[in-house]
Amino acid sequence: MKRERIKVNVTPYEVRGNVTEEDYQCLIRQFGIWPLNKELLDRIKRNVGELHFMLRRGVFFAHRDLNWLLDEYEKGNEFFLYTGRAPSGETHIGHLVPWVLCKWLQDKFDAELWFQFPDEEKFMFKPELTFEEVQKHTYENMLDVIALGFDPKKTHFLIDTRHANLMYKEACKVAKKITFSTVKAVFGFTNETNIGSIFYTAMQSVPCFLPSILKKKNIPCLIPLGVDQDPHFRITRDILPKLGYYKPAILHAKFLSGLKSYGSKMSTSDPDSTIWTTDSPEQVRNKIMKHAFSGGRGSIAEHRKLGGNPDIDVSFQWLYYFFEPDDKKLAEIREDYKSGKLLTSELKAYLIDRINAFLKEHQRKREAAREQTDKFIFKG
Amino acid sequence: MKRERIKVNVTPYEVRGNVTEEDYQCLIRQFGIWPLNKELLDRIKRNVGELHFMLRRGVFFAHRDLNWLLDEYEKGNEFFLYTGRAPSGETHIGHLVPWVLCKWLQDKFDAELWFQFPDEEKFMFKPELTFEEVQKHTYENMLDVIALGFDPKKTHFLIDTRHANLMYKEACKVAKKITFSTVKAVFGFTNETNIGSIFYTAMQSVPCFLPSILKKKNIPCLIPLGVDQDPHFRITRDILPKLGYYKPAILHAKFLSGLKSYGSKMSTSDPDSTIWTTDSPEQVRNKIMKHAFSGGRGSIAEHRKLGGNPDIDVSFQWLYYFFEPDDKKLAEIREDYKSGKLLTSELKAYLIDRINAFLKEHQRKREAAREQTDKFIFKG
Repeated sequence: MKRERIKVNVTPYEVRGNVTEEDYQCLIRQFGIWPLNKELLDRIKRNVGELHFMLRRGVFFAHRDLNWLLDEYEKGNEFFLYTGRAPSGETHIGHLVPWVLCKWLQDKFDAELWFQFPDEEKFMFKPELTFEEVQKHTYENMLDVIALGFDPKKTHFLIDTRHANLMYKEACKVAKKITFSTVKAVFGFTNETNIGSIFYTAMQSVPCFLPSILKKKNIPCLIPLGVDQDPHFRITRDILPKLGYYKPAILHAKFLSGLKSYGSKMSTSDPDSTIWTTDSPEQVRNKIMKHAFSGGRGSIAEHRKLGGNPDIDVSFQWLYYFFEPDDKKLAEIREDYKSGKLLTSELKAYLIDRINAFLKEHQRKREAAREQTDKFIFKG
Repeated sequence: MKRERIKVNVTPYEVRGNVTEEDYQCLIRQFGIWPLNKELLDRIKRNVGELHFMLRRGVFFAHRDLNWLLDEYEKGNEFFLYTGRAPSGETHIGHLVPWVLCKWLQDKFDAELWFQFPDEEKFMFKPELTFEEVQKHTYENMLDVIALGFDPKKTHFLIDTRHANLMYKEACKVAKKITFSTVKAVFGFTNETNIGSIFYTAMQSVPCFLPSILKKKNIPCLIPLGVDQDPHFRITRDILPKLGYYKPAILHAKFLSGLKSYGSKMSTSDPDSTIWTTDSPEQVRNKIMKHAFSGGRGSIAEHRKLGGNPDIDVSFQWLYYFFEPDDKKLAEIREDYKSGKLLTSELKAYLIDRINAFLKEHQRKREAAREQTDKFIFKG
């Protein structure tokens, strides 16, 4: 077998290089995950009557064991959802991608969601970050999750240090089966990595089986996540059967592009490439206008004549990934942009309106969420 | 400087070879600890009026920062005691050595004792050990601690998995400052060590500063321990000042010999070398008679003529370390054994009586402790 040249390096702790469509296909082979094909999508649709646009459009592009999960569901066995957010700063639009799908899956499959806030993870990996800062971010990040409309009766927040009485012992059971060699190979750790970072993946595995412990029966788990998080669960999936639990099923999302170039991962360390959930309409306008990479031409005349390229245009991609759920409308925009009828400035103006409409509503719900965190934090 | 040949290997996870007096002197240099000299012992005596026989006799033979701790005490600043037991089986007499000194120190210095039961430690290091077994041992080990007469108002049990809400976050702060290189060098870990074992030392450091967090002021800590535990706190002492806490002071005990040979560490894996706190008088008699290594001669006639060697006689050492607090009586036994007046069988019979008298009382208090564990487990 020819060894594939790997252009991108994707781990939970580093995404190096821009990730193109070709790279996602390469990741499928590199990670040993499965394409989310039409047959599976049809099967989801048969079960719940429709498909979320992120599924239709391949924003979620790969999976592990989704067939098995649907087998279980079709037999009448419930499953639960698990996703999370390692608090280290504000929430940006890219973070919302798996959460939005979680909300849809919760509604359609009537599933519980266990949402982990591993408040020690980024503390371990970022030398300057303090626990005090992380606590502040944890609270703010919770507001963004709640604002998406999850059902408080079916949604449980786990905060690693606050739920350590429940989680640490279970993490130890997993940790006992993971050697330093394994985490070295999977995450690229070295002898200089700190021992908290080395241990951490065991904590991330716990929500995959904690509900099974609490309910005293084995419950299948489905994890919608950004594909960079897959390495954690590759380890988890090796170990859970040895502890008597199911391997979690996974749905892998592509990264929402950072503004500055198509295929970059939106980064918290470059605010110009990022729209935060707390940005004002003016901030959104400025960032999109200034920084959103355009697939348009150098002049209006040239654009009118030759048309733009939506496939590398970040504004178009943002509509495709997140802000334009209507396929028909999106197809029109695509055609108009390609033909030159729609100018970059017009495309950007349309995106700005969509983002600001979304954020207006999100920010209203986000403020209302300030009094609701207690309803979501798991009492265990 | 001439490099010293190290005959013994002493880490928390391995004590290889018998440890002789000479080896303890070698460990002092190897570990960079300080001999517990007459000046320090006199200073303790000046403060509390007497010296425990384990201090007088050099059963505790070395220390770190005891001068500083006594400075603080003499300035009127309280300190607390910290010791522990990693539950993996029954308690044997060797385990009791540091606990007995803790009890004396608690009484004499009116000090709180924080007693850690790291119920994950041996689980991590012993492939076959389950958490269920560890929980059983934890409870049984608690009974032995309580039976020694600690003041429930001043004694707090910490059980790592049950107090993880308090401990895990603090352990993460320590773990962030420890690299794999460090634990590799200190504990002899390899790439095949599991990530729970790698993380564990951070949990063992937490009781050194948890009371300072809870009381919102920096409180000095004194740890009486078996010298094999020193490597953990060598790491802790490097890190705590960086987190704003005092380095813990330490008192290092020698190992109570296993029965079968002088200088061996009593091992839970060889029941014949070990007296458990739950042994019956008959079991004690059998083990001492059969297995306790004798410094006596091959025949009674020869013994009468040439005398025995108390310095390598395990029965005599057990009286010296634990079962004969009366110095005068001990000196008599020593002389009589050396002169040949006292036979091995008589020395053993004396020891058996002393052990059984101790265990009769200990076992009575141990049963009474069954209803008392709740008074000792920290409510935090």
